[in-house]
Amino acid sequence: MSSELADVGLIGLAVMGQNLILNMNDKGFKVCAYNRTTSKVDAFLANEAKGTNIIGAHSVEELCSKLKSPRRIILLVKAGQAVDDFISQLEPHLEKGDIVIDGGNSHYPDSIRRTKELEAKGLLFVGSGVSGGEEGARNGPSLMPGGSDAAWPHIKEIFQKTAAQAEGEPCCDWVGQTGSGHYVKMVHNGIEYGDMQLIAEAYDILKRGLGCDEKEIGDIFEKWNEGVLDSFLIQITRDILRFNDDDGKPMVSKILDAAGQKGTGKWTAIDALDYGMPVTLIGEAVFARCLSSLKEERVRASKLIQAPAREEFKGDKQQFIDDLEQALYASKIISYAQGFMLMREAAKVNNWKLNNSGIAAMWRGGCIIKSVFLSDITSAYRENPDLENLLLSPFFLKAIAKAQPGWRRVVAQSTLWGIPISAHTTALSFFDGYRTETLPANLIQAQRDYFGAHTFRVRPGMENERLQAGQDIHIKWTATSGNVSFCGHWDRLCRDKKLT
Amino acid sequence: MSSELADVGLIGLAVMGQNLILNMNDKGFKVCAYNRTTSKVDAFLANEAKGTNIIGAHSVEELCSKLKSPRRIILLVKAGQAVDDFISQLEPHLEKGDIVIDGGNSHYPDSIRRTKELEAKGLLFVGSGVSGGEEGARNGPSLMPGGSDAAWPHIKEIFQKTAAQAEGEPCCDWVGQTGSGHYVKMVHNGIEYGDMQLIAEAYDILKRGLGCDEKEIGDIFEKWNEGVLDSFLIQITRDILRFNDDDGKPMVSKILDAAGQKGTGKWTAIDALDYGMPVTLIGEAVFARCLSSLKEERVRASKLIQAPAREEFKGDKQQFIDDLEQALYASKIISYAQGFMLMREAAKVNNWKLNNSGIAAMWRGGCIIKSVFLSDITSAYRENPDLENLLLSPFFLKAIAKAQPGWRRVVAQSTLWGIPISAHTTALSFFDGYRTETLPANLIQAQRDYFGAHTFRVRPGMENERLQAGQDIHIKWTATSGNVSFCGHWDRLCRDKKLT
Repeated sequence: MSSELADVGLIGLAVMGQNLILNMNDKGFKVCAYNRTTSKVDAFLANEAKGTNIIGAHSVEELCSKLKSPRRIILLVKAGQAVDDFISQLEPHLEKGDIVIDGGNSHYPDSIRRTKELEAKGLLFVGSGVSGGEEGARNGPSLMPGGSDAAWPHIKEIFQKTAAQAEGEPCCDWVGQTGSGHYVKMVHNGIEYGDMQLIAEAYDILKRGLGCDEKEIGDIFEKWNEGVLDSFLIQITRDILRFNDDDGKPMVSKILDAAGQKGTGKWTAIDALDYGMPVTLIGEAVFARCLSSLKEERVRASKLIQAPAREEFKGDKQQFIDDLEQALYASKIISYAQGFMLMREAAKVNNWKLNNSGIAAMWRGGCIIKSVFLSDITSAYRENPDLENLLLSPFFLKAIAKAQPGWRRVVAQSTLWGIPISAHTTALSFFDGYRTETLPANLIQAQRDYFGAHTFRVRPGMENERLQAGQDIHIKWTATSGNVSFCGHWDRLCRDKKLT
Repeated sequence: MSSELADVGLIGLAVMGQNLILNMNDKGFKVCAYNRTTSKVDAFLANEAKGTNIIGAHSVEELCSKLKSPRRIILLVKAGQAVDDFISQLEPHLEKGDIVIDGGNSHYPDSIRRTKELEAKGLLFVGSGVSGGEEGARNGPSLMPGGSDAAWPHIKEIFQKTAAQAEGEPCCDWVGQTGSGHYVKMVHNGIEYGDMQLIAEAYDILKRGLGCDEKEIGDIFEKWNEGVLDSFLIQITRDILRFNDDDGKPMVSKILDAAGQKGTGKWTAIDALDYGMPVTLIGEAVFARCLSSLKEERVRASKLIQAPAREEFKGDKQQFIDDLEQALYASKIISYAQGFMLMREAAKVNNWKLNNSGIAAMWRGGCIIKSVFLSDITSAYRENPDLENLLLSPFFLKAIAKAQPGWRRVVAQSTLWGIPISAHTTALSFFDGYRTETLPANLIQAQRDYFGAHTFRVRPGMENERLQAGQDIHIKWTATSGNVSFCGHWDRLCRDKKLT
């Protein structure tokens, strides 16, 4: 009887769930399938799962009775209440050390809460990002599990064999504690938004700036896909640019330029604002989609607003294309560095010990952002697990130093052309801010102290009796007033002017 | 006895509350003051309010008994539960048509809820933004009331006389319904973040780009304050730049360049993401403060990252300063246009009829963003109350056309210098995107359809049998697969490559 027990249970037989079960079965694991509407279990066993080792259950109790100890149960159900409901149903049938795994698109605070709740009951919880869609679930997804550390040894083999493989390694490793798995999945989605926006901007520059047609641009992407930009998204962009409608015209040129979104990029940007981390590239990528969706207003505006005088490009075209490749590459480095900065802050706030090299390694395959580039990030974190910032690794310091001149030329040229490349541009602004010892925020602090008595700190090396290190300092900026006064002062000064 | 009834009651005797009472008293209104800790009422009457017409109450019931009908009661208490608690306490003592006014920093969804709750009980609710700090409360704040329309005629005189005056008009008008008053205050705060960041960037460009010292920059700001940039913030910047420490060195140069925030700018940026409106300048301004606060990391990075080769500025210095003035002005126009776009969307979602010209007029005085510029915005909306976008008004079309060449030169030059001016830069990117009929978001839609079957729409004029107008279209991008497939396809293509 014991030999018939399954290695893992899975609840939720939508296509994702079915495909993940079939994938695990292929890898030699015995899976027990359950679904709330039990007729789906029977249909699955009679069709897709026919001739496999997959077994089924018609109740949560039966599912639990058919699993090896410790029980491993994957939930692939709608994020939100359904996850909590199934956990409640499972609990009476679980024993200490059993593992509940949520593979849905849960918001990470829920996963933090669930880890604590289950651990308090002697159970283990894992929240796992699953990337790669239906196809990835079937053939090898990127899996990003985090939660109860004690669960990992029990799920490691199943997860790593089921995941996509890249460079001979699984696209799955232990992310960290509580909600970190779902957090990393969210950042992954945000980065995907950024990568897509960067590619769209490069296409725009090639098309409107240099005057290339889709075929030429497809050839450029083909070439780029053999270099530092080698990635799934560059490759499908090449394929898209070469895909013609029946009349021989590029299909992409017939598509409405109003981009949709499912909100996952937005959540990363909101989280960045909440944690106070400057994840500017994802922010601009989300805003660029918002602006694109104002299509009709833009059409009206385009007829009213005067464009800049347009000069023919007089430089070396191939040099500019090479510059653009470097600009895209450098901007991508910035975006991933910002993503890791956000994860660093989230780890600090939520007390996670994040596996940075593992995160990069997991993204190398099975998901939309998979790329050769992620191998270099993996290496950077393997060489120095305590690396403060991706930008400060020897490899990327060198890469960005090489890219810098071309990147600047592309941003400056697009500015003069009037072609908006907000993701490239914000990346360069961030880079220049990040490498600047002294930013003009001293003036902002002075303003805030002037009108709101918000105080400031003294710059190191500038201390004196009045300006003491480590103190919140407020000074009387206006000679006429002992209080912090902005309305009165301004009104007084402006008495004879236009406004008062 | 009736003649002794007060015109208005105010709950909450912190400095803001006391000052607003004294201000209303000055303007000829009889105010009844109440505070939970009633000793504060006595102290206030015995000191600050001595010799005035101000009266006090020692209970909510007494307060209500001392007010004319309909009762007008202003709450100036901590945002959140305290507001709801006081409303509950007041309710038993109120009659139909009485008006509760929340003048605190409430989050607008709370004001939406409270309006509905009180209106259901036959009472009226007003959520009012109050800007200008303690000084503004005493001498004339910017007041932004919204909520129950029926309340406005009863509070108009008090509010408009108490508010700051600009160009002979009160800095107070009726904003709109439910939570619109607090919403507009939130956007005001976000715009303040943007204005401050723009000024800081101009300072940085003048200092590090042109090599001006604080005294020279102060003189430039003095001149700017006589032109299109004439505003409170430009003026205090001039004063700050001229303020020297005892050793004769500029105080601002001794202030640590790590900017703090109280979160109000952040909330505007988050709201923009939530509503899908590209309020990029406030977003970048908030992120710039975040980046500034990573001071120690920046110092380390500055020693490791190679700066661009720096060339001496060879152009006409005065011309560049004039360009910068235009760049700052144009970026400011973008920021306000984005703010009004956000309010437009919020109005749509929340079913508000917003008073756009009134909003601009209210901001002309009494608050930190007060400026001559806001008079031009007021005029633009008065000329055309249905103006789709500030950028499309004749006045601003002309202003931005004039500013455009200099604005581009400044952004391009700063890019080559490596001085980050992310707010100026994102403003220009937004402008170029907004005036572009066809953005490259068609490629993003193609990518999304390729890897996720997210569908797209056809561009007008490109319809055919396969691509029909108004339809969500999905096509098979890969010849080898009937399903939408990204992992399999890529892995197949990449089998011989580095990653798989």
